[in-house]
Order: sequence, then C-alpha cells, then structure tokens
Amino acid sequence: MTAPLTADWAALSAGLRARDGVACQWRVAAAPVGNVRPTDFAWHEEPVPSPDEGEVLLETLYLGLAPVMRMYMQGTGAGGARKLAPGDVIHGRGVARILESRHPDWRAGEIVQGQIGWRTYATTRMTAGERFFRVTSHDLPYALACGVLGMPGLSAHAGYFACGQPKPGDVTVVSGAAGGVGSMVIQMARIAGAGRVIGIAGGAEKCRTIRALGCDDAIDYKSEDVPRRLAETCPKGIDYYFDNVGGETLSACLERLAMGARIALCGSISEYTRTTPFGLTNYTRLRAVEGRMSGFFVYNHVARWDEVMGEMAGWIRAGRLKPVQDIVEGFERMPEALSRLYEGKNIGVQCCRVRPEPPHPAVEGAARG
Amino acid sequence: MTAPLTADWAALSAGLRARDGVACQWRVAAAPVGNVRPTDFAWHEEPVPSPDEGEVLLETLYLGLAPVMRMYMQGTGAGGARKLAPGDVIHGRGVARILESRHPDWRAGEIVQGQIGWRTYATTRMTAGERFFRVTSHDLPYALACGVLGMPGLSAHAGYFACGQPKPGDVTVVSGAAGGVGSMVIQMARIAGAGRVIGIAGGAEKCRTIRALGCDDAIDYKSEDVPRRLAETCPKGIDYYFDNVGGETLSACLERLAMGARIALCGSISEYTRTTPFGLTNYTRLRAVEGRMSGFFVYNHVARWDEVMGEMAGWIRAGRLKPVQDIVEGFERMPEALSRLYEGKNIGVQCCRVRPEPPHPAVEGAARG
Repeated sequence: MTAPLTADWAALSAGLRARDGVACQWRVAAAPVGNVRPTDFAWHEEPVPSPDEGEVLLETLYLGLAPVMRMYMQGTGAGGARKLAPGDVIHGRGVARILESRHPDWRAGEIVQGQIGWRTYATTRMTAGERFFRVTSHDLPYALACGVLGMPGLSAHAGYFACGQPKPGDVTVVSGAAGGVGSMVIQMARIAGAGRVIGIAGGAEKCRTIRALGCDDAIDYKSEDVPRRLAETCPKGIDYYFDNVGGETLSACLERLAMGARIALCGSISEYTRTTPFGLTNYTRLRAVEGRMSGFFVYNHVARWDEVMGEMAGWIRAGRLKPVQDIVEGFERMPEALSRLYEGKNIGVQCCRVRPEPPHPAVEGAARG
Repeated sequence: MTAPLTADWAALSAGLRARDGVACQWRVAAAPVGNVRPTDFAWHEEPVPSPDEGEVLLETLYLGLAPVMRMYMQGTGAGGARKLAPGDVIHGRGVARILESRHPDWRAGEIVQGQIGWRTYATTRMTAGERFFRVTSHDLPYALACGVLGMPGLSAHAGYFACGQPKPGDVTVVSGAAGGVGSMVIQMARIAGAGRVIGIAGGAEKCRTIRALGCDDAIDYKSEDVPRRLAETCPKGIDYYFDNVGGETLSACLERLAMGARIALCGSISEYTRTTPFGLTNYTRLRAVEGRMSGFFVYNHVARWDEVMGEMAGWIRAGRLKPVQDIVEGFERMPEALSRLYEGKNIGVQCCRVRPEPPHPAVEGAARG
C-alpha cells in the first residue's frame, strides 16, 4: 500500500554547488508518483537576473519545506497555487534579503518572506499572490520566518485556535507532534490551558523532544500500539485532536473521542505516499459524541498575519514557545530536505539554509535566540 | 457489496393479529446480518400485565420506525440504549394512552410518547431513560408524536439548527430528502431563509414530493448521476449539506463544498446494508474549503424539548411545516414497516398504527390536521 521510502539523495546533490553570482534553481523533472524520487528533480543554473522597473532582486537565505510540495510537483495546483509542469521551478516559501529594488514599496537590505520558489536568486514584483511580508523581528533569528514566524506558524495558530476552538482543560492529542506544526501546537495547547497533552510521534528521539516541549505523554507510533496507548492515556476520551497525519491515526482518535470533541484537520502526511487512497470508515463516530471535524485553509487567515505573528513572537521572547527547526545546510540538498518530511525524519520545521544570515540591525535590549 | 433487499414480509405477518386484551410483542429472534430478514423477528403473546405500585399501564397507539433499530437488534447498544439479545423485546419509541396509573405523576387517559418497545400493551415506571413526554398538542393528530412532534422532529431541528448552524442564503443540499427527517429539514431550510434548496431522493414519486415541500431542485439518485447533477444545481458549491445517507452521496457532496461549508451528519442509511464498510477517502476536502463536518446526538438536546416542540407545532399550525408520514396499518406488520426504511420505500416518517386515535379533548378554535 505504501511506496518505498529510500533513495540515494547524496548522489543527486554530489557535484552541485550553489554559489554567489550564479542563480541556481531546482525544477520539476517529473511528477512524483507516490513519494518523491531523485529523478523528479532537475538542477538548473543561469546568470543572476536584473530587476525590471517594479521588481526587486532577492537573495535567498532560507527555504522552507512543506508536505504540499509533492502535490505542487504533481501539478495539482494544491492550495490555489499555480499549477506546475515539468521544467517549472518548484514552489516554495522562504526568507530573503532584497539585494536591489526598483519597486516603490520595498527597499534594498530589507528582509522579507514569501513565495520565492526553489531559487538562490529571484526577481519578483512582490505580487499579492506571492504573499510577501517584511521580517520585522530583528531580535530573533531570520530562520524563524520559515517556521514559527512564518506560514507554518500561522497554520499552527489558525488551526489550533480558530479552526479547532480549544477549551481550557481539553484532553488534547496531537499527531505529527514532533513536526513543524505539531511542535508548535503542543506548546500552544499548554499556553491555552489544555488538560493533558498527548503527542504522537515516530521514534524515541522525537518522543523525548515532545516530552521536553510539554507533552504529558508521548506515543511512539513506530513501536507502540496507538489505539491501546490512546485508551491508556485518555481514559475519559479525547476532547481535542489536532491531526497532522490522517489515516489510521485519525481513525484511532475518532474511536476515542469524548462527548463534544473537536478535530482540527491540518495535514494527512501518512496518506501521501500511499498507492491506494485511505478510506475513513468511522467518521460516523462524530454523531455518537456530538463531535466536529473542521478543516482550515491557511491563506484565509493571512489578514490576521500581524496580530498572530506578534503573539507568536511574544511567546518566543517570554520563553513559552520554543522554536524547533531542522535545518539542512545547502541549497543543493533541497530535494533531500523535502524527502525528510515524507520519511518522517525531521524534528520541528524542516528548512534549508541557502546562505548565512546577514548581520541583524541592532535592537535595543534584544537577545538573539 | 450490498445484501439483497427483498424478503417475503407478508408471509411473516400472515395469521398474526394484534387485538385488545392480549399483549402482543415483537422480539429479536436473531441479530440481523446486513439487512433485516423475517427470520430476525419473533412474535410473542401474553396476558395484558397489571401495573405495580409506581407503574402505569399503556396501550400503544403508534410506534415509530428508525434506522437505528437494526443496530439495536444487533445488540450494539447504539445511542446508549440497553443492549438487546435474542428473546428481548425490540426497542422503539411510540405514542400511547395511559389505561391505568399507579404512578404519582401520570394520570389515566393522558397521551404520552416515549420508549414503549415493540408492544401493544406495556407497564412501565416512566423512568428518565425512557424519556416519556406528555403529548399536549391536542389540536394536532397524535400520530405526529412519532414524527414532527417527536424524536425525529427533535433530530431534524437539533441537526439542522444547533449542529449544522445554517446561514441565510445557504445553498443547501439534503439527502434522504423524502425521509422522515429529510422532509422536515428541507422545509426548515425554507423557514430559515436558505438560498437554493436541493433534495436528493430515490425515485420520481419522492422527487415530486420534495419539490412540493419546497425544494428548488430534486436529484433522483436512482436514475441520475449525483455528482453531475450537484455540479449543475450548485455551480458555486454547497454551503450546507444535511447528510441522512452517508456513503457515496456524502463523498460527492464533499467534492462540491463552497468555502466555509458545513455538513451536519444525521444518518448513514446507505451504509447500513453494506457487507463491507464504506471508507470516506475525501474527508480532506474539508481542509481546502475551511469546512466543518459535525455530528449530533439527539438525546443531548432533550432539555430543549418543550421549546423545540412548541416551535415545530407553531410552524405546523401556520402551514409552514407540513408533516409527512408513511403509516403502515397494524402492529403485525412492524418488521415490514422497519424494512421499508432500508429498502428506501417510505416517504416521510415511517410509523405503524397500532390502534385508532382516541377522541381528542375539545380544543378552542383548533382544526385537526
């Protein structure tokens, strides 16, 4: 039912080198079937472009990796993104510095985040569809704009609060708990006054991480029986389930819902590499418990960007929300970095460092993380 | 995937006759496998019981039929009901007259509705778990207490309003639209100011009925392609789907949801007679449209009984809510009446007339329906 998860990623990046003065890109070579394979990616080099009137030239600092990227590469236009075909640069949000600006609203030297694509340099008109934002928290690492202070952070916040509507005391279960969004949600559950917080993750190291982040219990789905452990850890049922994985885990949580339970649907990464679709047979459990299962579309929440990012940055500075990032070094290794998501290897937000962070402007009384 | 739906119900009731002075019952003979069959039911006769101190003696007027009864017979304890085993009287709510009372709160002659079981006479302590209510709308037929003014009416009201949270202008789709709950929901959608109301039902007669009840469009799932017709009738998507059937119809509606859509899960009768479980593969559509799928447990809403029943009765008297009932004559035919639900034969609330209605008390200015 599941495609093999191993591939020789080192061979793909061997001999490639992103360097200043050359614009490097990763493009779609072939639409992935099941999981991504090295042959799905094509490296491309060209001269650094010059911005036209109304454009800026960006140099990329970080790129974030998201499960949806496999679907982008398949040409589905997931999430409303422009549909890709073989030969197109792969979609991806990241953090960049403006090298040169011929755009009236943006200045050289500003740090921005937005839809850059898998590129080391990019010219862009900063259109609304690319959803660029200024990075203004100069007392915090710019890498966080790929995570807590970026679209993954907005996903975690909008999903946990607006979509799932937590209540104080909720027995809360989070799957993919050591992942980018999951590692934030377990901490937000603590901040919101949840009752017991139970994280589900794969492997001992991830389980240690999520306990350290505030989980009362950690379930290792690779070595433990998830339904049995849910019964042990949630004897009165689950009030709130934040779902990052879908599939059998979602099904197991549905079986243990408490009356009035809520499920926030964020991701279904366990289903992405299946060759036959997963069918949810027990969705009718929602009837027995007067439960609710809700999805959210993160771009619907972009209007609240400043408010949410301000709140997240405040929690980071107060030590209540610890950013967890899994950084792969080097643009050459972007395909490998993406594959880590589907292989369950990443702890925290998966991102790729394309260049070292430039010096931050001095911030009064600030401490860099 | 689906068990055969035909059976010789006439042979089962032939020679049986419920009559005054003998307490007749239908009991579980065998747990149904797939759909109910005549061999699952056993007829039983015994003397009319005398009430003990604290009990009343009821004579049954009507019994209602509900899809959940097949699950009762399977011993699942669905909906929190006492689990049945072969030999037990089948659970069922109905309308009865109190023949004799040795209970301090109830008087002989009162009309009541509650958990009577498949019996023509019953003694009971009117416990909380049996959820007995006085029938007080004497200007309306007592039969309605099996439908609009009974638990099906509370299901329709709680499901449509409290669970699904309609908004004015909603493009509303109702499956099982000619059934007991569905026939009420399409009318409540009109009352609530829905936009287009589209009903899904099986066969031309049912489609005529639901158009007459206020549907702008009727989709005949037996002769039409449901996904194609949903695309035609809901070009901008479905805002609200009230689901009585589950299965492929739920899946088709998920594919056509508009942004912010809500699904109220009421029933899944299309799945009940499957021999392999239905798997919902596209529940993740809720993410793309920021949608919500909610279930409800009707007994959670019983505290609002008087308020809801008062509102429903008001709509009936004002001609805004037309009760639709499908009445099988004779207690002997209860198994057949139940089978009609799974065979898709009933139009409106399926019930069984056990005895003629007694004369109603005179009501000032009332017109019986």
